[in-house]
Amino acid sequence: MSQYTPTIELAKDLISKNSVTPEDAGCQALICERLEKLGFVIEVLQFEEVTNFWARRGTESPVLAFAGHTDVVPTGPVENWDYPPFEPTIVGDMLYGRGAADMKGSIAAFVTACERFIQDNPNHTGSIAFLITSDEEGPAKNGTVKVVETLESRGEKIDWCLIGEPSSTKTLGDVIKNGRRGSLHGDLIVKGTQGHVAYPHLAENPVHTAIPALLDLSTEVWDEGNEFFPATSFQITNLKAGTGATNVIPGEKEIIFNFRFSTELTVDMIKERVHAILDKHNFDYALEWNLSGLPFLTAAGPLVDASVAAIREVTGIDTELSTSGGTSDGRFIAPTGTQVLELGPLNATIHKVNECVSVSDLDTLSTIYQGILDRLLGHTE
Amino acid sequence: MSQYTPTIELAKDLISKNSVTPEDAGCQALICERLEKLGFVIEVLQFEEVTNFWARRGTESPVLAFAGHTDVVPTGPVENWDYPPFEPTIVGDMLYGRGAADMKGSIAAFVTACERFIQDNPNHTGSIAFLITSDEEGPAKNGTVKVVETLESRGEKIDWCLIGEPSSTKTLGDVIKNGRRGSLHGDLIVKGTQGHVAYPHLAENPVHTAIPALLDLSTEVWDEGNEFFPATSFQITNLKAGTGATNVIPGEKEIIFNFRFSTELTVDMIKERVHAILDKHNFDYALEWNLSGLPFLTAAGPLVDASVAAIREVTGIDTELSTSGGTSDGRFIAPTGTQVLELGPLNATIHKVNECVSVSDLDTLSTIYQGILDRLLGHTE
Repeated sequence: MSQYTPTIELAKDLISKNSVTPEDAGCQALICERLEKLGFVIEVLQFEEVTNFWARRGTESPVLAFAGHTDVVPTGPVENWDYPPFEPTIVGDMLYGRGAADMKGSIAAFVTACERFIQDNPNHTGSIAFLITSDEEGPAKNGTVKVVETLESRGEKIDWCLIGEPSSTKTLGDVIKNGRRGSLHGDLIVKGTQGHVAYPHLAENPVHTAIPALLDLSTEVWDEGNEFFPATSFQITNLKAGTGATNVIPGEKEIIFNFRFSTELTVDMIKERVHAILDKHNFDYALEWNLSGLPFLTAAGPLVDASVAAIREVTGIDTELSTSGGTSDGRFIAPTGTQVLELGPLNATIHKVNECVSVSDLDTLSTIYQGILDRLLGHTE
Repeated sequence: MSQYTPTIELAKDLISKNSVTPEDAGCQALICERLEKLGFVIEVLQFEEVTNFWARRGTESPVLAFAGHTDVVPTGPVENWDYPPFEPTIVGDMLYGRGAADMKGSIAAFVTACERFIQDNPNHTGSIAFLITSDEEGPAKNGTVKVVETLESRGEKIDWCLIGEPSSTKTLGDVIKNGRRGSLHGDLIVKGTQGHVAYPHLAENPVHTAIPALLDLSTEVWDEGNEFFPATSFQITNLKAGTGATNVIPGEKEIIFNFRFSTELTVDMIKERVHAILDKHNFDYALEWNLSGLPFLTAAGPLVDASVAAIREVTGIDTELSTSGGTSDGRFIAPTGTQVLELGPLNATIHKVNECVSVSDLDTLSTIYQGILDRLLGHTE
């Protein structure tokens, strides 16, 4: 008998596979093997170099899907790790390895939660599903977005989606993410007329021209946010003008900016307001937009209720609903009408050297996931 | 007998030598040979890779020096020239070749003006001098500035200095430069705190921080100029922030700017006012200054009077005194108390492919230079 629980054993097995994006390295086959034994129907969905799978147990609604990714970010300099990143190592209560927290630990907890739940509820209501990709940390072009398209094309709906992203900040379960802001990029070229710095009247300096408009953009109150979202944020991320020569007035200036926006604004509203500000200042420019993700929100409903209750029962914590942070694959799932929540372990070490997760937290997380299954798909009789 | 005048022949001989900075390629030896025959005492002043010479005829004051450079800027793509740039070619009235206008033509006109003047005035008053460098178009570290230091160190003064830079704009003699604005560079680093664009409250965006200060700097009226100088000009020439990543708030922003300033302002006044504006906005920055040249002005006096009169006599034109344009070696000579003027051919083709000068203009220019010699050092009896 192992000294560790099935959750920890599975997490270790997954961490031991070097699955830097877009590699899956056999992780999904291992998971599918476990799910097939539980009666899941497995559908491998390969899109170019990316391996994904959709698995479902049951044919009825509602569908509760566990979503996540087997790929991990690169290790960085291996010599900076205390333990080899693909040799899972337990020291005290901590399990070290790339993907321990983001998110092979969560996937292991998904699987063992299902195993216990199905043993207790072989005839659960609705369906349990898994949507697993190996392209979350990379371009995210051939992963979740394509699986969702496949499901949509045949009218298959996910009612509730629980994503294993590490949402906890100080204690397991203290924060769950019930939405994310949208992300919209702009690439603005302000056009001027190049010239010698000694003859400014013959040139038009686009750096000077753009300053009043940038002041307006940077001080504009885009919205006040709402109950679930912080106020929309505008940030200039990149700026470039000039050739390096100190006697030449540059011919153009490039400004790249990003909006993280709440559900109070639409993409069209933002574009219209930005153009209005730029046009007011009456200069020549070109602006290209790139939408990275729409905002989404799971405000209330059975998934939120079940998650909050399960966390409280297992840990005693009143969890906080939050929409802060970067984008996740939830942006691809939520637009189909699915309620989406992210709940996973502490995120303090993700993407860093010596990524790790608490062994006891992973076991607790598996119990919380099981509690959510109980509440949403368990027989109450 | 040549079909061309001595001025044109000498200009052709000089153009035929490939003297891209810092090379002199034998130009100065050719000039010195002519000056020695006229009784000049030659002093070759080699500083590192740069050849310069100082030549003087006479030991008395006042000293009228002809100043200029034998080096030329690179040709650019030779295939774009209609005639090989170092094979002087006359087509119609135009003499083509690199340096034709800037400024081998002027130097030829200097020499032939002296030859005729000395023939007529072997016992002229004062002294005639030549200050010639091969480092005007380059770093200008081992050229005129070092020759002036040498003269200063032994108490040798230049009273009047005529520089052969191409000052004319539409017609020969229409503009002479009686001063230049100062040039002062600033390299400003605005410091912020790098962070993820999704967490702007944890970062401090130096691009946003700097905007109000840049607006103040770009709209400030630094002075109104004066009778001789246009208003001081502030221009941002280079701007950089961000790593290229679109989800990262940059940690710092670099702004390089340039002042072209009139005699209404000193360097210290400019620095003080810039710091006052920056400090008012209360952010963290570092600022390095680099003085490229102080402003100078030759407002009135014998040199201006003689030049204006000679131009009027030879061409019928009322010349315009101007301080516009880029820097020249005059910035090194004027601070010693010398009256400095720039008078040369049309500048339309300088630094370009197919640089050229009018053959008849060069001959006229030589006559003008002779007229100035007559007025300043000729015997009036």
